[in-house]
Amino acid sequence: MRLSNYFIPTIKENPAEAQIVSHRLMLRSGMIRQSSAGIYIWLPTGLRVMNKIADIVREEQGRAGAIELLMPTIQPAELWQQSGRYDAYGKEMLRITDRSEREMLYGPTNEEMITDLFKNNVKTYKDLPLNLYHIQWKFRDEVRPRFGIMRGREFLMKDAYSFDLDFEGAKESYNKMYVAYLRTFARLGLVAIPVRADAGAIGGDLSHEFQILAETGESTLYYDKGIESFELASLTGDIESETVSKLQSYYAMEEEKHDPENCPVPAENLRTAKGIEVGHIFYFGKKYSEPMGAKVAGPDGKEVVVEMGSYGIGVSRLVGALIEANHDDKGIIWPEAVAPFKVGIINLRAKDEACTAACDDLYQKMQDRGIEVLYDDRDAGPGAKFADMDLIGLPWQVVVGPKGLEKGVYELKNRRTDERIELGLEELLNKLG
Amino acid sequence: MRLSNYFIPTIKENPAEAQIVSHRLMLRSGMIRQSSAGIYIWLPTGLRVMNKIADIVREEQGRAGAIELLMPTIQPAELWQQSGRYDAYGKEMLRITDRSEREMLYGPTNEEMITDLFKNNVKTYKDLPLNLYHIQWKFRDEVRPRFGIMRGREFLMKDAYSFDLDFEGAKESYNKMYVAYLRTFARLGLVAIPVRADAGAIGGDLSHEFQILAETGESTLYYDKGIESFELASLTGDIESETVSKLQSYYAMEEEKHDPENCPVPAENLRTAKGIEVGHIFYFGKKYSEPMGAKVAGPDGKEVVVEMGSYGIGVSRLVGALIEANHDDKGIIWPEAVAPFKVGIINLRAKDEACTAACDDLYQKMQDRGIEVLYDDRDAGPGAKFADMDLIGLPWQVVVGPKGLEKGVYELKNRRTDERIELGLEELLNKLG
Repeated sequence: MRLSNYFIPTIKENPAEAQIVSHRLMLRSGMIRQSSAGIYIWLPTGLRVMNKIADIVREEQGRAGAIELLMPTIQPAELWQQSGRYDAYGKEMLRITDRSEREMLYGPTNEEMITDLFKNNVKTYKDLPLNLYHIQWKFRDEVRPRFGIMRGREFLMKDAYSFDLDFEGAKESYNKMYVAYLRTFARLGLVAIPVRADAGAIGGDLSHEFQILAETGESTLYYDKGIESFELASLTGDIESETVSKLQSYYAMEEEKHDPENCPVPAENLRTAKGIEVGHIFYFGKKYSEPMGAKVAGPDGKEVVVEMGSYGIGVSRLVGALIEANHDDKGIIWPEAVAPFKVGIINLRAKDEACTAACDDLYQKMQDRGIEVLYDDRDAGPGAKFADMDLIGLPWQVVVGPKGLEKGVYELKNRRTDERIELGLEELLNKLG
Repeated sequence: MRLSNYFIPTIKENPAEAQIVSHRLMLRSGMIRQSSAGIYIWLPTGLRVMNKIADIVREEQGRAGAIELLMPTIQPAELWQQSGRYDAYGKEMLRITDRSEREMLYGPTNEEMITDLFKNNVKTYKDLPLNLYHIQWKFRDEVRPRFGIMRGREFLMKDAYSFDLDFEGAKESYNKMYVAYLRTFARLGLVAIPVRADAGAIGGDLSHEFQILAETGESTLYYDKGIESFELASLTGDIESETVSKLQSYYAMEEEKHDPENCPVPAENLRTAKGIEVGHIFYFGKKYSEPMGAKVAGPDGKEVVVEMGSYGIGVSRLVGALIEANHDDKGIIWPEAVAPFKVGIINLRAKDEACTAACDDLYQKMQDRGIEVLYDDRDAGPGAKFADMDLIGLPWQVVVGPKGLEKGVYELKNRRTDERIELGLEELLNKLG
């Protein structure tokens, strides 16, 4: 993409309203703009990153056997009255009355709707296990929306729902998602710690929050360091249930639940770090299937109320979380898997015909090879171009100027390490292609 | 995808609530389910088709230079008060009061929001022309939602907005979208007639509705037959402005505006057909930029209020429109470009080991070649499998049974023509790959 034909409205100064680094950098690098409190417009590069995250989430959900569908944003109140959550949900639910005076709401989550869908369309145990998910906008009317898209009101979430005949099946479905989550966050270049969460009386220990490590994280975690190394190693192959049990046996708690006196981990193995919650998986048995009547005919012909779990990933939130974990004082440092473009070309002398011809040629050759490239072809000074490119944070930068061209070389900069090397055209294309 | 691991809840009987064929077939083939009046859940195959349509729309918008971003669904009332449309819009607008008693709404369209975004982020004519679009859910609180997703309340729409310095520029932007629309519908396998629409006093003749031809269409069109042949031929290469002028000069009117007495088309060239509106393009000058103050510095440094146009495509509506134009009494007949899968494998004898082994092998080989395949591996009778596969409407069916396997052949059926041929394994894979 040529920057002159694109829309990346960068900002030099730090916006006063942004309290955390991801919010500042998303505004400054032209990824988002606020429309109203906690509600954002996703500008082109922001949308590209979010879509790449969503695609990775999608692939790993699919690999784990979950099936994608799409539920609407607006839900009828009746469903929530059936489950008993309509009155309980409080002011975070955006309640709406339509022109026919029907009570509606903007879905903050979809347990009720998916349970109703299941109930009306699945009749036999033969169709189980079943895991249905969607990636859709949700709304939670936060009393104080803040931190940009990290705690917005309208946000994009992946939520999956599993249906099983019995607890053993439900546990297997849960563990599949547990593994899918570890894979997903690893592919995003993040270290994610599955922290034991409250599942209430029903779930026993089948509830985990996935917290990614970032210095600017909102919660403090205590965990057995074994989980870090274990996790990555175990992701190389298929994960056996034994492996999952081992993983789940590692200690990992939020500060509020961490009791230093009775912590089972020896001091030398105990780590503490800041975390940002980006996912939550949760077994809840018959909490919705029972009141809403979601049953199937079992093997013996008798009706069985199904066992359910739900599995959320904050897709839009991950954009911010990734920046919290990947930035420096110049801007964002995107992991390749989610970068809006892989490489940026900086034309140092847009007015120099030879320099521009070389850039145009390089740009064309990169496109021909399918390399995602952002070409800063603007007629602007080198300082502004360097600053913008660092701010936007593409993994690689190619700097093209008259001096290098005389020698027949292009300067390739690694945004993360700041390492710079000079390469001929073919070498450069081979390295990036 | 193995049908036994998927979720396509087909229905044998015609649902009583469905008045038109696309609604009936979408329900029966398990593409959608209604959640509440005019609000639908998109089941897996429905979502796949909608995503494929969206991707084609996206590619053609990109080819025409439009840039994708994403605006939120919930908008602040203030924007609409600035443009003067807040009170004018009436009951079709879903109005919402949030927990802080702020007036919000679920966007039925985005002229106000995009004009505001432009105003705050674009300052100079050098950034023009600019065309920004998104594909996002909209809500119109129809008094009588009907015809399934064809006239739903929550619907998916692509809307693009162009910004130019002067009328000449705006006209060029308009014509680019005009061409992009013709390309888009042609790629979807549809004949689309651009019908002159009312642009009011501002737009002159710069307003067209794109109507696709279908016997079950809701409006009656009268048009010069030249437009049909011309269109397809002109899509093979770049379209010159002359070509666009010629295309736009062809007569095409809805019945209400067609005056038989004064029609300029000779009777032998005049065609009449039923149409379904799937797109609308519209030049509206300074209607929003003036009251909302969207200006840029012009070449002489003076401020210029920008010229705008908007360009909509009903993405979810197109799913229904495609079915209205592509079906028979057995079910849907998908054009390849948007089919949920390209081919279906029907295993006639799921209990026969050899037959199932052959199907498994064929399925694996198709997947290895990247052929999108739905494999009916269920333990069900041939009649039910044939009926479901015809209903779902994949372009190709491969029927695998013991008799064919004895001869070493597979029966390949073309869903549209009902033509059947017998092919060996390699021939079959080469034909479909």
